[in-house]
Amino acid sequence: MSGNSIGKLFTVTSFGESHGLAIGCIVDGCPPGLEISAADLQPDLDRRKPGQSRYTTQRREDDEVKILSGIFEGKTTGAAIGMIIENKDQKSKDYSKIKDLFRPSHADYTYHQKYGERDYRGGGRSSARETAMRVAAGGIAKKYLQERLGVEIYGYVSQLGPIVAERFVQSEIEQNPFFFPDPDKIAELETYMQALTKEGNSIGAQVTVVAKQVPVGLGEPVFDRLDADLAHALMGINAVKGVEIGAGFDSVSQKGTEHRDEMTPEGFLSNNSGGILGGISSGQSIVANLALKPTSSLRIPGQSINTAGESVEVVTTGRHDPCVGIRAVPIAEAMLAITLMDHYLRNRGQNGDVDSGLVSVGPER
Amino acid sequence: MSGNSIGKLFTVTSFGESHGLAIGCIVDGCPPGLEISAADLQPDLDRRKPGQSRYTTQRREDDEVKILSGIFEGKTTGAAIGMIIENKDQKSKDYSKIKDLFRPSHADYTYHQKYGERDYRGGGRSSARETAMRVAAGGIAKKYLQERLGVEIYGYVSQLGPIVAERFVQSEIEQNPFFFPDPDKIAELETYMQALTKEGNSIGAQVTVVAKQVPVGLGEPVFDRLDADLAHALMGINAVKGVEIGAGFDSVSQKGTEHRDEMTPEGFLSNNSGGILGGISSGQSIVANLALKPTSSLRIPGQSINTAGESVEVVTTGRHDPCVGIRAVPIAEAMLAITLMDHYLRNRGQNGDVDSGLVSVGPER
Amino acid sequence: MSGNSIGKLFTVTSFGESHGLAIGCIVDGCPPGLEISAADLQPDLDRRKPGQSRYTTQRREDDEVKILSGIFEGKTTGAAIGMIIENKDQKSKDYSKIKDLFRPSHADYTYHQKYGERDYRGGGRSSARETAMRVAAGGIAKKYLQERLGVEIYGYVSQLGPIVAERFVQSEIEQNPFFFPDPDKIAELETYMQALTKEGNSIGAQVTVVAKQVPVGLGEPVFDRLDADLAHALMGINAVKGVEIGAGFDSVSQKGTEHRDEMTPEGFLSNNSGGILGGISSGQSIVANLALKPTSSLRIPGQSINTAGESVEVVTTGRHDPCVGIRAVPIAEAMLAITLMDHYLRNRGQNGDVDSGLVSVGPER
Amino acid sequence: MSGNSIGKLFTVTSFGESHGLAIGCIVDGCPPGLEISAADLQPDLDRRKPGQSRYTTQRREDDEVKILSGIFEGKTTGAAIGMIIENKDQKSKDYSKIKDLFRPSHADYTYHQKYGERDYRGGGRSSARETAMRVAAGGIAKKYLQERLGVEIYGYVSQLGPIVAERFVQSEIEQNPFFFPDPDKIAELETYMQALTKEGNSIGAQVTVVAKQVPVGLGEPVFDRLDADLAHALMGINAVKGVEIGAGFDSVSQKGTEHRDEMTPEGFLSNNSGGILGGISSGQSIVANLALKPTSSLRIPGQSINTAGESVEVVTTGRHDPCVGIRAVPIAEAMLAITLMDHYLRNRGQNGDVDSGLVSVGPER
Repeated sequence: MSGNSIGKLFTVTSFGESHGLAIGCIVDGCPPGLEISAADLQPDLDRRKPGQSRYTTQRREDDEVKILSGIFEGKTTGAAIGMIIENKDQKSKDYSKIKDLFRPSHADYTYHQKYGERDYRGGGRSSARETAMRVAAGGIAKKYLQERLGVEIYGYVSQLGPIVAERFVQSEIEQNPFFFPDPDKIAELETYMQALTKEGNSIGAQVTVVAKQVPVGLGEPVFDRLDADLAHALMGINAVKGVEIGAGFDSVSQKGTEHRDEMTPEGFLSNNSGGILGGISSGQSIVANLALKPTSSLRIPGQSINTAGESVEVVTTGRHDPCVGIRAVPIAEAMLAITLMDHYLRNRGQNGDVDSGLVSVGPER
Repeated sequence: MSGNSIGKLFTVTSFGESHGLAIGCIVDGCPPGLEISAADLQPDLDRRKPGQSRYTTQRREDDEVKILSGIFEGKTTGAAIGMIIENKDQKSKDYSKIKDLFRPSHADYTYHQKYGERDYRGGGRSSARETAMRVAAGGIAKKYLQERLGVEIYGYVSQLGPIVAERFVQSEIEQNPFFFPDPDKIAELETYMQALTKEGNSIGAQVTVVAKQVPVGLGEPVFDRLDADLAHALMGINAVKGVEIGAGFDSVSQKGTEHRDEMTPEGFLSNNSGGILGGISSGQSIVANLALKPTSSLRIPGQSINTAGESVEVVTTGRHDPCVGIRAVPIAEAMLAITLMDHYLRNRGQNGDVDSGLVSVGPER
Repeated sequence: MSGNSIGKLFTVTSFGESHGLAIGCIVDGCPPGLEISAADLQPDLDRRKPGQSRYTTQRREDDEVKILSGIFEGKTTGAAIGMIIENKDQKSKDYSKIKDLFRPSHADYTYHQKYGERDYRGGGRSSARETAMRVAAGGIAKKYLQERLGVEIYGYVSQLGPIVAERFVQSEIEQNPFFFPDPDKIAELETYMQALTKEGNSIGAQVTVVAKQVPVGLGEPVFDRLDADLAHALMGINAVKGVEIGAGFDSVSQKGTEHRDEMTPEGFLSNNSGGILGGISSGQSIVANLALKPTSSLRIPGQSINTAGESVEVVTTGRHDPCVGIRAVPIAEAMLAITLMDHYLRNRGQNGDVDSGLVSVGPER
Repeated sequence: MSGNSIGKLFTVTSFGESHGLAIGCIVDGCPPGLEISAADLQPDLDRRKPGQSRYTTQRREDDEVKILSGIFEGKTTGAAIGMIIENKDQKSKDYSKIKDLFRPSHADYTYHQKYGERDYRGGGRSSARETAMRVAAGGIAKKYLQERLGVEIYGYVSQLGPIVAERFVQSEIEQNPFFFPDPDKIAELETYMQALTKEGNSIGAQVTVVAKQVPVGLGEPVFDRLDADLAHALMGINAVKGVEIGAGFDSVSQKGTEHRDEMTPEGFLSNNSGGILGGISSGQSIVANLALKPTSSLRIPGQSINTAGESVEVVTTGRHDPCVGIRAVPIAEAMLAITLMDHYLRNRGQNGDVDSGLVSVGPER
């Protein structure tokens, strides 16, 4: 029943259900001297927030984060940063219909089996609302990485159901409600999503996250590899069923001559490795893809059982995202930032002992 | 420079390079009373061992494991289990050719940049030899899980380059040098691999691992999810570039009605979730796929740089696996076993507090 | 800058300064099904609260704890429990006098050197106010241990400056403002403390904590011993300079025949070991003493330096405890409870594998 | 059953019983570039080794350490360092007498209750032999701290039974078999120990360890304080029943004016804090005392029970230390070094963010 923490030197611990008084987190390990305020964290929280467009859930959550500690005169002090977001509207609607049954492909069943007790209102701890705190915590990491190291982190939806991004226009990403980088496909996406909503169904998505200008040397060989820790952080996001780095599953059918990233004095000639070699950042861009399953809260009835083990039909009537993958973009960015920040802090102490005598190389994929 | 441990209550810590005196590990947290001997661990070590067939590297490693502690009168005592495998033939061949240059897509470059010092003989800590200790440690977990809980773990190559397994015959897996479950494709694989070896090239592969009869309730919500920890364990295997659970990347284009695993009193009707819901085991079979990249040690020359930053041509002359994915099968099984064992130990204490009042359901995918 | 967490399976992470918006903590790992409410935690918070008597600081802190998550219908769900105590009166008095100087024997100097930035208001993270959250978290552990296992935890001041408790009357402890178990010494203590306050000086104290009815088998050999973890938990309380278990420093001059706790079928004949043998609980009462230094906030001037490295005279004018040891009693009880709870959760999973075939023995020291 | 690791970034994991094939450890996190060989570690191992004098056990252990990994061309590479010491003479004597009974004040009873299984030969995991690996691991930390930071670590017996060191002559410590710093008391110690041995009894001792020239800023506020971690490391040594830092238990009867360490531009005027303020090193010498109990292996019979719960008389016939405190000196030094090394690695990354603008001050106690 533990396990609500991530990171070794930059540690984020979260709490909260969607129907309690508040959700919150503690960010432990942020170095002193970073200028930070709630206003820095709000834009990413707003990107994650439901109700932003027709294509995400219409529930209104007022995701206003409060920083309770760890900041003095506008800067971090090195002390633990406590943050909360109050649940303004936590008065429960009527949950009596779902209280005693298990929605298919939902944490309902496993929570019930594991804990006996279950806060069925809004999914309890499995609620997507929990991810708001990840975004807040990740915002601190993002700001540090950008200001101190020049690391740029961004994410986007690279595929939504059958619709694949074929062009990449970075400036387009924030211009449409899908975080989609291909301006030619926006109309198609809108049509697709309207049909899906009407049908009462949901759809999966692929999210891509990228970190540019990452220092060489982050990650530890063997178990605490950067790619392993990144897989942990990303697979731990609600609804994620797959993670790949660089060429990922395409590697399966690649030959060595095709996959290997040749090097020249001017830099790498490709980035199939996705910026990580032997578990350690190479200085190239870190590139990861996430597969997000379609949500299981559907208006189309499905078979299930209740807590008495009897057969029931389940149908979800509330407001739900037809594609949870869209809102996962800022969450995935946050988890990437948290992972890099942790490894940066683990690594930077090492520099005093090391002089590789070599300037880093590293172009872009 | 730390990070050589995995697991919270069942903790494996490893050490060793291919050219030192020995490699070894400590398995900390195995419960007392398990009958175990080196003979129990040897079969999986032999499955991983190079030189077993034409299609894996011809280096002869005599992977004979010695258990140094933690066993008394044939049974575990609850004390830490120390194990080593001596490097019989650690006298170095001439490494002067690769000492000062970086093989493309290899840990050479990142180790050099991170540590300054580098044991270039056999890849040092990035050597596949390190994985022998994972297999030994995993063997203990496997035996415990099987004997005490009836968990069955197995793995296989589900795709090798362009060749996909279309039939699944479990008994076939150990009958061919590719751990391939489709008896109709063995001849094709042999032809393919011979051509590849002749060419001096390498190829990627996809490995699938399965755990049957897993107890319900393993894994913690939020960060220490079973799927997240499994992703960490599997992505941390050398050459792995992607991990997916259940439907994985197929989820991206699935609709909710297609993806959701409906339930009946007799059990689940499908297993797109791969046995994990909300980060917690559901009692269904856990199914994970791994993408393994083609090795970068090729007889076909490639561009690179040396430690002075100058352009060089690199060619590998030694014996190397044309497909490292094949030998990854027992390693992936071991990492799955270690992860399940750790979560089993974290979970089993919880049962005293919980009575879900429901018998588990759970058929097979 | 990390390090705000304690415990492996029952993990408490805290945040907050005395002059921020709130202090708080996350209790991660409490099993489901425990009835708990803020009202259960308030009595110990009140025992710790300053301003309770003439002999502790007269600052009024309204230590009202709010539970924000992890409780549903009055019971724990197994989810992380977030708690906060708002700082009602965090408007700073004038700190300009101490802003640039270091109080002798205070964390001022080391915080300044370590972090550069320092929240000088009320000591920032070194404030005794932080310990309120430990008491709240410990309250949950205490309740679990008592209800489920019958463990009884209590503490008292066994020595205050030169005044040593010579009689032990448990019912007396909560009847006087010193948590002192010897009713014959209360008048003497009052006289002593009045003189001390008048003088503007402070005094050290020894606190004793006891846990009765502890199950046999808690603690791990070698590093994670119960006594080692207890020493960690207790030495981590503000102002503690020494920790001893059982006979403690008296062991130095004991002979083996004097120290050893002989056993009979009816139980142990003594408890020099303080309930822990080989790092593992024996079933006897766990007994630990803590040495608390006198606070360094004095009305008697002392020499120090300022942040420019110049000589200054320091004098504290505010309200401060003449004996911080008194209020440490509930904190020490909390840390003992947290440590036992963590080891209980680590251990209880082990029982399925073990049948010692022996009933526990264990009388009282 | 886990818990055989210590340290977060400099992590030591140990294994081994006195009657297995070997004992060993893994040192994970040593920075690259440190020159180290077995010869560097042997002197401290020899100081710990039994059979060195009449006053420690006469068992001959040939504590020759082998480094198996992590060193290349005489220097650390940053990889995990595996080390073993073979048990040359592990053939068991006849243990049938103690197999089924519990020695009073020994781990026999708690191991039996916790694990069911017990390696009764030589105490299994509770054997003092385990501490040899701590000394080896600590030797690496000691060398790093000394070479890179100029930290000097030493220890001595400050009290043995009733005999207290009244003079401190550092050069005397290694000149007598008691690690005793007072040359005037050596004759008295010899007489005392001879009488004790003749009597078949044992005696407690107090060990003091000191670290000079420790950098300012090691340790984290709240839970991972340097003093708390040091208490954990030292209390985890076999037979230790108490730990104090600086003035320790003397603080109990000190007034604030007496205890506080005043500061001048030239440095601190006293060191009651033992070099740690608010959990963070102050730059003064770190000074800790340990109380070691008398061993419970005595030639004088005592009452106990057997595994059937029946009353028995226990007497130890083998060779045993009359004062285990003596050999604890190098072990305590090692644990101090390991703790400082871990906090040094956790801290040094922080320097880039911090400029306190103040030169450290710090004289000697």
